[in-house]
Amino acid sequence: MTAHFDFAPLFPPGLPAPSARWTGLAKYSFVGGNNDSEQVPVDDLIAAVDAVLRREGRNLATYGLAHGPQGYLPLREFLSAKLKRDAGIISTVDDLLIVSGSLQALDLVNHTLLARGDTVIVEQETYQGALNRLTRLGVNTIGIPLDGEGMRIDALASALADLKSRGVRPKYVYTIPTVQNPTGSIMPESRRAELLRLAADYSVPIFEDDCYADLVWSGQRPRAIHAMSDKGGVIHIGSFSKSIAPALRVGFMVAPWEVMSRMLALKTDAGSGALEQMVLAEYCRPHFATHVPALTRTLRTKLDTLMEALNEQFGTAAEFEEPKGGIFLWVKLPDHVDTLKLYQAALAAGVSINPGPEWSTSKGHSGSRLRLCFASPTHQQIREGVAVLAEVCRREFGVPARIANVEKARG
Amino acid sequence: MTAHFDFAPLFPPGLPAPSARWTGLAKYSFVGGNNDSEQVPVDDLIAAVDAVLRREGRNLATYGLAHGPQGYLPLREFLSAKLKRDAGIISTVDDLLIVSGSLQALDLVNHTLLARGDTVIVEQETYQGALNRLTRLGVNTIGIPLDGEGMRIDALASALADLKSRGVRPKYVYTIPTVQNPTGSIMPESRRAELLRLAADYSVPIFEDDCYADLVWSGQRPRAIHAMSDKGGVIHIGSFSKSIAPALRVGFMVAPWEVMSRMLALKTDAGSGALEQMVLAEYCRPHFATHVPALTRTLRTKLDTLMEALNEQFGTAAEFEEPKGGIFLWVKLPDHVDTLKLYQAALAAGVSINPGPEWSTSKGHSGSRLRLCFASPTHQQIREGVAVLAEVCRREFGVPARIANVEKARG
Repeated sequence: MTAHFDFAPLFPPGLPAPSARWTGLAKYSFVGGNNDSEQVPVDDLIAAVDAVLRREGRNLATYGLAHGPQGYLPLREFLSAKLKRDAGIISTVDDLLIVSGSLQALDLVNHTLLARGDTVIVEQETYQGALNRLTRLGVNTIGIPLDGEGMRIDALASALADLKSRGVRPKYVYTIPTVQNPTGSIMPESRRAELLRLAADYSVPIFEDDCYADLVWSGQRPRAIHAMSDKGGVIHIGSFSKSIAPALRVGFMVAPWEVMSRMLALKTDAGSGALEQMVLAEYCRPHFATHVPALTRTLRTKLDTLMEALNEQFGTAAEFEEPKGGIFLWVKLPDHVDTLKLYQAALAAGVSINPGPEWSTSKGHSGSRLRLCFASPTHQQIREGVAVLAEVCRREFGVPARIANVEKARG
Repeated sequence: MTAHFDFAPLFPPGLPAPSARWTGLAKYSFVGGNNDSEQVPVDDLIAAVDAVLRREGRNLATYGLAHGPQGYLPLREFLSAKLKRDAGIISTVDDLLIVSGSLQALDLVNHTLLARGDTVIVEQETYQGALNRLTRLGVNTIGIPLDGEGMRIDALASALADLKSRGVRPKYVYTIPTVQNPTGSIMPESRRAELLRLAADYSVPIFEDDCYADLVWSGQRPRAIHAMSDKGGVIHIGSFSKSIAPALRVGFMVAPWEVMSRMLALKTDAGSGALEQMVLAEYCRPHFATHVPALTRTLRTKLDTLMEALNEQFGTAAEFEEPKGGIFLWVKLPDHVDTLKLYQAALAAGVSINPGPEWSTSKGHSGSRLRLCFASPTHQQIREGVAVLAEVCRREFGVPARIANVEKARG
């Protein structure tokens, strides 16, 4: 055995740190966008895949099933109808691109519009995967503070005016308006209209991420920003990860051809997985409209369990606004709690959480905040996990104080 | 309706040209890596997906089925056993990464090792998707001439010595040693050993692309270069696109952890499609070893039809070496035939071909060559398509001359 080949001198500068080896999910996992395993419609998915493979299985011999680089036509047809019905978006199959999860949509939009040194506007608290990508690309992110109705328009107006005074035209405004990640708010239509006006005034496109928009407690969502635009400067993305199953890597995008044609030139993956597109189209046409409300009701009961557990275990030490839908709760702990440190200590005790600073452009604002996903753990795991988290937090930071109903719950 | 939003001023420099709208496959399609639709094992795939979803379908609620970023464990277990049996590669599941088609493997290797201005060594005729990626990345490619046994070692030795004298250490040697694309040769083990020695002498890793290695007429393939290395400086990739179905976007990679851990940090797609990994694992364990020889026999008969049709329609104007396996034939036409022009004229007549210059670093050598994929068209389509191609070529370039058996065949 000769000396081992050393790859290290070949790595270019700027590579991210190496990944650690996978060690499995925590016993109590409140991270990521995992969903409720009991709600995966296994039998109907089996029936769908059986039917579609019997009918079209031989087409798997051809890249993209010969439906072209924008994806499986029946899935685009389903989406075109769904987006019109639910979000008010008027689109044809030619305006739609199926992607390998909405993360690929983020990459395609970014590579089509961004260069190192560019500036984009995001919500101050926003999706970690979006923030990490922008950091990797060397793009400046301006975070706009949120209130209970999403991105604050007054703050956005100031930021746009300030950037203009410095000669900077932001490449896009990235927003998650319908069940905001991580805060769970829904931007009302009136504010969407204001956002559109501002974006038009400054000739900045809007990048609308509607990944969670199917999971709204009330069952009613506002029209998409894309649907309200009369100028076309909106790129809209969505996903089946939250409505059906995240391990199926299928997302989608609605974009004008001017942008679509550029993204297709960058989508050099020979198509997204065809079987997953086929089964989704076959399943969703008859079942989507009934599956999603049932899933949402289940998720809502888990949110209730989580909020109860937090009240019971943390008392007033945990503050949160009830989200309008989705699968996560954004929680504020007392100011002196450092959730990056809490994350480490909790993980050692078998509880994984998303520390706030990873979901924010403002480390100060988010330092004592955390995101808890309640869709994947069972009700019992939620209760037990929150109890362990409270115990760890008390040990590390002295909060929550030991209160009567905690003693009772642990007795 | 106000004026339409204009995205053009936002595009960064260096974007590829926009894609044209999809207009479908040509009537006679000899392009791409499409396979024989009759050979897709539809019934067994249905049985596999039924079984695996009944057993593990609920896991789709968790990203990556909770098997971690390297992919579905049973598929990695199958691959570990298969690679040992077929290619002599000793690997554990920890050495394996499942990717969304081997194109993603190309991207991950490139982004882990390459920076603009770097140099890599490739075969003079090689896979278009690899060449295009290197061009996009601004990487210099040195093409090594091929003979009937693959990359010529004397030419490689000269190139390495020349680069060293100029202070250039190439980042890798990219080779498709087992059913070379597009020439169809298989590099014998003796030459693989020479290649390994040279690469070690110059401390250059080998990037071994074995995407076609399952489709060998003789059923016997040499050991993988990866298997013959005792120093570990080989990254090995493969795919299920050619052995099962290309529309399932599933490929794989074997790499040392030093490189794997860097690639995982760059694989920010939240996992490759889980359903396709599940169905492949479930199907392949019992069926792969019988499916592939049957597929290969079918492909071999199509190659015979293609070679017969070329002999009949082109006579001596079409020269080719019989490939040792795979799905394509690399054809030389008379020197004055410009296959980029032939491509355009043939497409207008309903025949699509891959013009040689897109598959080569030497436009001079490849200008009158073309690649014909014979797996997807039927025997009849092969015969008809070659007849149309000959007709177009005669009209545009005066060859093939009208010969007796052509008249007969067309009569």
